[in-house]
Amino acid sequence: MIAAAPPAVVGEEILRARAYLLRVAEPPARATGRLADLMGAVAAADAIRRGDVPEAVADETSARSGAERVDADLEAAAACGARLLVPEDPEWPQWPFACFGLTERKDLAPPLALWVRGTGSLGGLTDRAVAMVGARAATGYGTHTAAELGAGLAAAGQTVVSGAAIGIDGAAHRGALAGGGPTVAVLACGLDRAYPTSHAGLIDRIARQGLVVSEYPPGAVPARHRFLVRNRLIAALSAGTVVVEAALRSGAQRTASDARELGTVLMAVPGPVTSAASAGCHELIRQGALLVTRAEEITEATGRLGVELAREPDRPQRGTDALDEVQARVHDALPPRAARDIAWLAVEAGMDRDTVRSALMELERRGLASFHEGRWQRRTRRRNR
Amino acid sequence: MIAAAPPAVVGEEILRARAYLLRVAEPPARATGRLADLMGAVAAADAIRRGDVPEAVADETSARSGAERVDADLEAAAACGARLLVPEDPEWPQWPFACFGLTERKDLAPPLALWVRGTGSLGGLTDRAVAMVGARAATGYGTHTAAELGAGLAAAGQTVVSGAAIGIDGAAHRGALAGGGPTVAVLACGLDRAYPTSHAGLIDRIARQGLVVSEYPPGAVPARHRFLVRNRLIAALSAGTVVVEAALRSGAQRTASDARELGTVLMAVPGPVTSAASAGCHELIRQGALLVTRAEEITEATGRLGVELAREPDRPQRGTDALDEVQARVHDALPPRAARDIAWLAVEAGMDRDTVRSALMELERRGLASFHEGRWQRRTRRRNR
Repeated sequence: MIAAAPPAVVGEEILRARAYLLRVAEPPARATGRLADLMGAVAAADAIRRGDVPEAVADETSARSGAERVDADLEAAAACGARLLVPEDPEWPQWPFACFGLTERKDLAPPLALWVRGTGSLGGLTDRAVAMVGARAATGYGTHTAAELGAGLAAAGQTVVSGAAIGIDGAAHRGALAGGGPTVAVLACGLDRAYPTSHAGLIDRIARQGLVVSEYPPGAVPARHRFLVRNRLIAALSAGTVVVEAALRSGAQRTASDARELGTVLMAVPGPVTSAASAGCHELIRQGALLVTRAEEITEATGRLGVELAREPDRPQRGTDALDEVQARVHDALPPRAARDIAWLAVEAGMDRDTVRSALMELERRGLASFHEGRWQRRTRRRNR
Repeated sequence: MIAAAPPAVVGEEILRARAYLLRVAEPPARATGRLADLMGAVAAADAIRRGDVPEAVADETSARSGAERVDADLEAAAACGARLLVPEDPEWPQWPFACFGLTERKDLAPPLALWVRGTGSLGGLTDRAVAMVGARAATGYGTHTAAELGAGLAAAGQTVVSGAAIGIDGAAHRGALAGGGPTVAVLACGLDRAYPTSHAGLIDRIARQGLVVSEYPPGAVPARHRFLVRNRLIAALSAGTVVVEAALRSGAQRTASDARELGTVLMAVPGPVTSAASAGCHELIRQGALLVTRAEEITEATGRLGVELAREPDRPQRGTDALDEVQARVHDALPPRAARDIAWLAVEAGMDRDTVRSALMELERRGLASFHEGRWQRRTRRRNR
């Protein structure tokens, strides 16, 4: 299942420039990233060294621009089996990271490069990936469910992306590994460190069966703010994020907010209403996150055209097959070539507007309807997003 | 809390006519109800006795039109402490039953009259009522949660309406009684029977502290189809229906579908994804039902203007106080006097359209925004629906 890493096609100069950028700019560093996009990484690194950069870039880099640690960083990385993956590499997850272009939120900037450890291709692994996040202080129910979902997703060919933390993260990775699938861990510290230390063995296994990833250079410590900053990468590398257990006001909810802002599918697993560890999940669902209970519901919400079909060659499906009665009636009411508002559709379908509206949201999610300037239109089948 | 029943103002003739109609027409009997509305109950009963009625009415009544059991039914009712409540009585729940006018579904017809046992006024009790329904084969988690929610609703001055069945129904009634509130049980058999028999004591307590209600005449047995027919009354008597535990294809889901069709608020309580008893609730939430975990969330969704405010006189609240950051930004973006579409609002609020749309749905639910012909508008505060 692991796509082989392509042969190195990126010049030494670029690698060294990007290693320098990761060392001098504390993520997220939107202005520095834009400068590198604009003038190339090598020229950007030189400009930063000279101090000849726009103020926004100087703000992100001036504190450390004298830190010439490129050789040391590359050596330390090599020593722990890691390499530097840069945007100029075909293995770069170009498409997942395109979601950073959807937001102007300053803290949601793409990484300047990524240190990666493992043999998989990050671009290949994140072609079909789901993030699973949740509480460190998880309950037995939570870790059981995370492991089950992780295994189910792995069996369905999805890569599970998480943060290698104790609790839900660890259970999700372990489930994915048990399901025989690759899994990606995004760390908030240098790859030469294993954090949490009790997960050193798990992180080694993830590197063997998938990838361990970080934008922090070797030696970087897992400072508190880095967990929050790291969370955006977990969300961005995945077509959707599943929150398994989360208290009200938790780090997982930050990942959820990132996922929403980045335009990916936000999902949450319910639990007992008596459990504080599920209260954050329930709040997310009340705010619009999709309730999911099984791996199939997750792949349905995040899968891509053709992949699911390829597994059921004998049973061609129409996109409308999975609709319930109400959704099917609303879909029938949508004219093939004209756009209509909800009031019109409610009369046509013979249902109240709230029912029509929620059916339309579901049809839109399934790619069977689209919304433009206040009106809805039928779409030709494009399964999932 | 129990509003006193008004003095009898309905003539003996009308009572006898309605008792006859309940005896001869198996509910739901839409055509018979319309005939009685049109020509009056007394004339309608006479016409049915003569067989001089439209075909639709004949279909509903001809099998039993010769059953002259009025005296026997009134006597049997009186013997078990029950009386006949008719639409001509001011105690009739006129406003809750208005929801039957929203649907053309033939099985969702209003009752022709109701046998009631207890001292409360049905109209008064259902002015602020919430239905709680769920599985007979409930788990300990389910009955615990139903009882907690029932007690919380009772404490908030809401009447809990349910079906007196074992499992969730019984726990909801017991919780409401324990919370000191009135509760209404709608039975699928005559009021001279206690079904289930193990709930005879509970049903007596409900009659003392609220009302036991049925559209079936004394002696009627709880036939299987009557439970489904009865469910529409539970939904109609309530501003919203909460499903506490339900398997994937269950009677509770029928009540849920009735609640939706009748335009009331449909809610469901989540549970462990490992529990088959919660699978139906999760499906309902995935289809658009509101996830609820606490009595406050239920009253928020079903309360009426002014009632909640009256309980917090010292703390005037703005309708926007409870909004999260995203919702507040979208609310700010809504112009006070003009209507805008989602595309415009997304630009104004600086968020993606999906985020704006889900915030708008929440604002609409809170009465802070309204949707008309594809455009959204700010509304002055009208708390809840």
